[in-house]
Amino acid sequence: MKVSILSIGTELLMGRTINTNAAYLSEKLNDLGYSVMYHLVVGDNKKRLLDSLDYLLTLSDIVITTGGLGPTADDITKDAVVEHLNLKTELDQKAYDMMLERFNNLKIDMPKSNIKQVMMPVGQKVLYNHYGTAPGYIIKHNEKYIISLPGVPYEMKYMFEEVENFLKNVDNHYILSEYINLYGIGESSAEELIEDLVINQINPTIAMYAGKGTVSIRVTASGADEKLCKNLLSKKVKELTERLQNYISYIGSESITEHVINKMKKNNLSLSSAESCTGGMVSSAIITYPGVSKIYDMGFTTYSNNSKMKLLNVKKETLDTYGAVSYETCKEMLDGVYQNSLSDICVATTGIAGPGGGTEDKPVGLVYLGVLYKDKYYIEKCHFRGDRTKIRESSVHKLMNMVNNALTN
Amino acid sequence: MKVSILSIGTELLMGRTINTNAAYLSEKLNDLGYSVMYHLVVGDNKKRLLDSLDYLLTLSDIVITTGGLGPTADDITKDAVVEHLNLKTELDQKAYDMMLERFNNLKIDMPKSNIKQVMMPVGQKVLYNHYGTAPGYIIKHNEKYIISLPGVPYEMKYMFEEVENFLKNVDNHYILSEYINLYGIGESSAEELIEDLVINQINPTIAMYAGKGTVSIRVTASGADEKLCKNLLSKKVKELTERLQNYISYIGSESITEHVINKMKKNNLSLSSAESCTGGMVSSAIITYPGVSKIYDMGFTTYSNNSKMKLLNVKKETLDTYGAVSYETCKEMLDGVYQNSLSDICVATTGIAGPGGGTEDKPVGLVYLGVLYKDKYYIEKCHFRGDRTKIRESSVHKLMNMVNNALTN
Repeated sequence: MKVSILSIGTELLMGRTINTNAAYLSEKLNDLGYSVMYHLVVGDNKKRLLDSLDYLLTLSDIVITTGGLGPTADDITKDAVVEHLNLKTELDQKAYDMMLERFNNLKIDMPKSNIKQVMMPVGQKVLYNHYGTAPGYIIKHNEKYIISLPGVPYEMKYMFEEVENFLKNVDNHYILSEYINLYGIGESSAEELIEDLVINQINPTIAMYAGKGTVSIRVTASGADEKLCKNLLSKKVKELTERLQNYISYIGSESITEHVINKMKKNNLSLSSAESCTGGMVSSAIITYPGVSKIYDMGFTTYSNNSKMKLLNVKKETLDTYGAVSYETCKEMLDGVYQNSLSDICVATTGIAGPGGGTEDKPVGLVYLGVLYKDKYYIEKCHFRGDRTKIRESSVHKLMNMVNNALTN
Repeated sequence: MKVSILSIGTELLMGRTINTNAAYLSEKLNDLGYSVMYHLVVGDNKKRLLDSLDYLLTLSDIVITTGGLGPTADDITKDAVVEHLNLKTELDQKAYDMMLERFNNLKIDMPKSNIKQVMMPVGQKVLYNHYGTAPGYIIKHNEKYIISLPGVPYEMKYMFEEVENFLKNVDNHYILSEYINLYGIGESSAEELIEDLVINQINPTIAMYAGKGTVSIRVTASGADEKLCKNLLSKKVKELTERLQNYISYIGSESITEHVINKMKKNNLSLSSAESCTGGMVSSAIITYPGVSKIYDMGFTTYSNNSKMKLLNVKKETLDTYGAVSYETCKEMLDGVYQNSLSDICVATTGIAGPGGGTEDKPVGLVYLGVLYKDKYYIEKCHFRGDRTKIRESSVHKLMNMVNNALTN
C-alpha cells in the first residue's frame, strides 16, 4: 500500500526546524512493508493544507499528517480536515480527562480554548497522547485513511506505536525485515556482488542504503504468517551473507553504536575515550543510549596540544616530531586513556577536520583512529571526504566499526 | 517571489537520510526575502519526478531541485527535466575539464559514462561543482526558473553560494535581515510584548521562531538599496529590543554557541568542560566550529560516578549524600575542571536524561548546569521536557546561554 506524509508547519518552511518526523515515519513504514511515495511540507494555511491533502490522497492509499494539532490559532489541521470531509465532532471524554490531569499535575488552570483539542471526529479512531495535550486520529474516508499525529517529535513517536498496530492489520499480510550491515566495501561494489539477486527480487525484496560511510541492505519478506516470513527471510539473508561474507559488519536493525554497546554489555566490557577532532562526538554517540553508565567509564576531549600532554601524557617530543595528527600521537593517546581508566577498550581520535589546517602531507580529512583492546593496538590512517561535520561524523562511524571488529577478532 | 523545493532521492523516502537540504535552503531563501511555499520529496522515478515538478511550477515562481545529478542509472533529474522542457544539450568544456582534473588527482581513469554529467542544457546557466563531479544549472522556462543542485549536502551548500548571487538579482530589490535572540521568555509571552508590531508589520517584516528552548525574531527589510534597508532595519530592531530589553540574549544570525565562541576569542578567554548527562555534546558543539583550539582547552566526559571522583575529585560523600544529580555535585565538578585546567571559564552538566532513572524527587529532565567564571558560580536547576535527546540538547543550549550571560554580567 502507498503512503504519503504531509508535514504541516510554517517553521519547517522557515528552515529553522528540520523535518525529522518524515524520516522517522518513513523508516517505520518501510519496515512495515508500506511504500512511501511522497513527503510534502506545507505551512499553517488552510487552503494550501487542504489542496496538499487532496493532492496526496489522489496518489496514495494513506496520508499521514504531522503537526498543527495544538491549542493555538496556528493549529488548524484537525478543524480543516473535519470541515473538508464534512465530519461531525464530539467531546472525547478520555482525551478530556487526560488533558485535565496534565493541567492539574502542572497546577495550572486549563484554559477554555484547550477544549477544542479534545473535540474529535465522530465514529473515527482517536489516538491518545501520553506526552502532550493534543490527541491524534485515524479517519477512514472513501476507502482511504487520513492519520493525524502531533508535530513534536517525541509525542509523535509514542503515538505512532498505536498507529503501527493499526497498520499491521490494515494491509492484510505479515511483514518481516532484517538488515545486513557491511563494512569495508562501497555501494557500487556491493551491488555488483549481488546484482542478480537484486534484479530477480520478488519476495523477499532487497533494498540497499548508503550513508555515513557504510552500506546496509534491507531484506523484507511478506506472507500470510510469521513463520512463512521468517523462513523466506532467513534463506535470503543466508544467501546474501554468503555472497558478502568478507564485508559483513553485523546483522540487525540497530545502529553500529548500539550494536557495539550491546556487545560490551553482554561481555561486561568497559570503554573510555580520548577525542581530538571528534571532540566529544564519540562519547556523546554512546551516551545517546540509556543504561551505559556501567560500560562507559570516562572520556577526555583533548583538542589542544596542552590537554593531550597534561591529561594523556602525550610527549611533547612526539607532538613536535610527528605532529598532533599522527600514528604516534594516536598511540600515546590510547596509552594515556588506558593509564587513566584501565578500561577494557580504549579509543582515540586525532585528525584534521578542516576547513583550514590542511597541508600537502596532511590534507583536510586525514584522521587517525585507534582502538586498544587486550594489549593490541588497532590504528588506522583514514582519509574522509566532505566538510568539517561530515569528516567528524565519518570518524565516529568508522571508529565504532573498528571497535566492533576488534571485539569480533 | 515564491519558491518551492523538490528533493529527489528514494533514500529520503526510505527514511535513512534526513532531508537537511530543504531546511538549509529554506533558511537561506527566507533570509533573501523569498517565500518558501512547499517542500516535496519524490523518489528516483521519472514520471513522479516530472509530475511533481509540474505541480510545484504551477504553485511557485522558482523550483529548486536537489539530488539525482550523479553518474549512476538512478540519477535522472537532468535528463528528465531537459527532455520534459524540450531542451538541447551540449558538452560544457569547463565542467568537463574540472571533472577530468578530479579523476586525474584521484589517479583513476574517468569512466566514459561520466560524460553525461557534463552535457548541459544549451543557453542556460551552468553551476560548477567544486566538491564533486556533477554540475548544476539554472533553467529559465516560461518566466519561471528551475534550479538543480546536487543532493550531497556539502556539494549543494557550496554550489548554492552562486545561486544566492543569482537570486539577489532576480528579484529586483535589496533585502537585509537581522535576528534578535531572546532568553528566559517563552514564545507566547514574547509575542504578547510585541503583538501590535507583529500585526502592523509591512516593511520590515517580523517573524518569530521557537526551537530548542529559545525564541528568535527575524526582522527583514526590503528596499531599493542597502542604505535604505539598513535604515529601516536598525529602527525596527531598536524598537523591538526596547520592548524586549529584559530578555535579549544577543543580536545576530549566528548560533548561541558561535556567539559565545566569538566573544571568548575576542576576549582571549579559555573554556574547559565536565559533562555527565550531555556526555560530550557540549565540547562537540564547540568543536563544530573551526579555529577553537586556542579557546577550548580540555573536556571530561564523566558519566560514571567513578570518573567523577577520579578525574574531578568529586567527593564520594557528596555523591552518597546528595546524589550525582545535585547542586553540590555540579559545584564540585566545576571545581574539578578548574583544578585541572585553570581555564577562564569552566562548565559542568549533570542530570537525568531518561527514559529510566527518574524518581519523584528527581524526575527525568532534571539537570543541573554550572558555569564558573571569575570565582563566581552560576548554577541552575533546570527541568527539561522531551525524550533523552531533547533533554540533552536543551541542556547544551541553556548552558551556552548561561555562559553568554556570565560573560555579559
